[in-house]
Amino acid sequence: MFSVFDSPNPILFGCGTSKLIGEKLKDLGCKKILAVYDKGIKAAGIADKILELIKAAGIEIVEFDKVEADPPDYLVDEAGALGTAEKVDGIVGIGGGSSLDTAKGARILLTNPPPITMYSSYRDEKGAEVSGAPIDTASLKPLVVIPTTAGTGSEATPGGIVTDTKNHMKRSVLCTVSLAIVDPELTTGLPPSITASTGFDAFAHVVEVITSKAPNRISEILAKESVTLIAKYLPIACRDGSNIEAREAMSLAATLGGMSLRGPFGGIPHDIGMCIGALYHPPHGTAVGALLAETMKFIAPVVPDKLRIVAECMGVSIKADASPEQIGEALCDAIRALYKEVGLPQMRTFVKSKEDLLENLDILFKGKSFTPKALTRDDVADILTKTYDFN
Amino acid sequence: MFSVFDSPNPILFGCGTSKLIGEKLKDLGCKKILAVYDKGIKAAGIADKILELIKAAGIEIVEFDKVEADPPDYLVDEAGALGTAEKVDGIVGIGGGSSLDTAKGARILLTNPPPITMYSSYRDEKGAEVSGAPIDTASLKPLVVIPTTAGTGSEATPGGIVTDTKNHMKRSVLCTVSLAIVDPELTTGLPPSITASTGFDAFAHVVEVITSKAPNRISEILAKESVTLIAKYLPIACRDGSNIEAREAMSLAATLGGMSLRGPFGGIPHDIGMCIGALYHPPHGTAVGALLAETMKFIAPVVPDKLRIVAECMGVSIKADASPEQIGEALCDAIRALYKEVGLPQMRTFVKSKEDLLENLDILFKGKSFTPKALTRDDVADILTKTYDFN
Repeated sequence: MFSVFDSPNPILFGCGTSKLIGEKLKDLGCKKILAVYDKGIKAAGIADKILELIKAAGIEIVEFDKVEADPPDYLVDEAGALGTAEKVDGIVGIGGGSSLDTAKGARILLTNPPPITMYSSYRDEKGAEVSGAPIDTASLKPLVVIPTTAGTGSEATPGGIVTDTKNHMKRSVLCTVSLAIVDPELTTGLPPSITASTGFDAFAHVVEVITSKAPNRISEILAKESVTLIAKYLPIACRDGSNIEAREAMSLAATLGGMSLRGPFGGIPHDIGMCIGALYHPPHGTAVGALLAETMKFIAPVVPDKLRIVAECMGVSIKADASPEQIGEALCDAIRALYKEVGLPQMRTFVKSKEDLLENLDILFKGKSFTPKALTRDDVADILTKTYDFN
Repeated sequence: MFSVFDSPNPILFGCGTSKLIGEKLKDLGCKKILAVYDKGIKAAGIADKILELIKAAGIEIVEFDKVEADPPDYLVDEAGALGTAEKVDGIVGIGGGSSLDTAKGARILLTNPPPITMYSSYRDEKGAEVSGAPIDTASLKPLVVIPTTAGTGSEATPGGIVTDTKNHMKRSVLCTVSLAIVDPELTTGLPPSITASTGFDAFAHVVEVITSKAPNRISEILAKESVTLIAKYLPIACRDGSNIEAREAMSLAATLGGMSLRGPFGGIPHDIGMCIGALYHPPHGTAVGALLAETMKFIAPVVPDKLRIVAECMGVSIKADASPEQIGEALCDAIRALYKEVGLPQMRTFVKSKEDLLENLDILFKGKSFTPKALTRDDVADILTKTYDFN
């Protein structure tokens, strides 16, 4: 099975690049933009810094600051309605994945009638893709996204995730961005806990890409570089948030993660982790990251060579004659050590109880993953139990 | 200076992927396509193999087999006119860079009035970009490209090069492809000389990207992987053309080269090498490759760290305290050794004479390159003389 690689979002990467936002918006012909961000970004002073630069370029701004995690469809609709009413000619999304995804959805609604769920696709119970209505892409107005975390990689993916609040499911909308500005300097103020959870989200992306059942040589190159950077720099970024070398490495690693997802998609940690997120509301990267270690042991028998690649990128030396199980153990240990080193909490602290987890197996078990080893209900129970029990 | 990265061409990479051409064309809605290739690809039996697969999918084929190196504008116009007259609903380009670029140009002319030069851009004498007329991109019909060499990377670039035969200059047209199918198995029949020259074209691309004055962190990751692959596998592919591991590595390296060019563009070897190509007609990769070694010595004082990266990817160990000049010498030697190992000819065998080279300095010296060290006329004379004199 082969998968197709592309990376359609133009990415401007580097320290200080966010200062070019005014110039870039003018190049795109924008005179009045909708700025989409959340209140945390405002409180951190980052939104104002960016908005000042946009104003200084003589561009009018309409603000939408109501972004919420796991962007609900009604807020995307509201942002789109605001932009339409105010006749903006462009959108700027500033923040983590939720702000960027809300901005992506709102952009569609500037020139396509609401609601956003009309254009979203999802997988049905049998895993088949159900497409949304076609989007008039030729009419789309410019969208610039500026990530302020190093995690989701949404700046590099052509899709956005929107929560269908009526049907309680995540749906995706397809929409490339006009420009992604990735400025690591914007992440220096992130507290260690957010640095760690978002960083582990990126880490899970790239480990899932390398071990995917849909191998992609180009994605793998990007993912390998990302694993190498995260293993080295995530602990430093968590210890010393102002270390710009570490922040730059993490921003690059997260963007590479988003790029690499264009080929194969996620595996067990994201599939189960997202459901845990919906049940107990831990940070996305924490839920996903907690499951990564045990997942490696589970898939070790079928893709030992891929696990060896991940381990080597992490600097873990594995004997040439190691068995698949030994490789799985070694990688599991290394991932647990990294998870612990960056201060992420054990699963027992963010789920109700082991019993509650197992009672919710029907929700947590979704057989749609790109994992190379087919997953039974019992396998999920086993991975969850071992993850829960680990201290 | 920062540059933007994207990689808009969807790429399907892997051994055997060319067998999917019929299915992919049907997915794109094609019923009658224009097949663009050159007589060499036909003689090698590759064109027929692909055309059979297309026919087997029930798709009608119109053939254009007149592709020439450095695609002249009038042949692109002719291919476009043929496709228009035959009312094709898609194009398939099969071959090296010239076939792919001819196909890219012809695709524009299916839905935009000729001639192709109208839509092409170029740099004027002062190095400023002169744009062509805008292309109606929404009307473009599907284009699938299938490279049969591992060199130009045209499958991964969104542009095509067309020769303006009236004004004796190369111009570029902007046009992403609908799908690039990169099947290393198609390259196993390439003779060593073409394997070597096309391989060195890819090698020059990625070395120029790493040492460019417009650094791009994402391009650099792809280029580093490409240097590593070429240094290891190009000699093997030249010695044993049927070695599929080496062919796969070289096809990947060339595609990564094309992807990496999306950020920074080429430097001295391509700038001067293309002019040498126009004067004396050696294979493109030979002219470019011959200049690469001395260029490294020239730029060593300004970007020693970048040269160290290239050297390390090539497996050349350089002392931690080496001076920029020592790094330049070491890399120059390593590149010369690789050039010789793969059997490429010394410059003295493909230019008229040293005197003739120096008499043509005005043509050979173009100050538009992305090299990190500014270039004078004397520098060019020096690089040419040293390259010529080297045995």
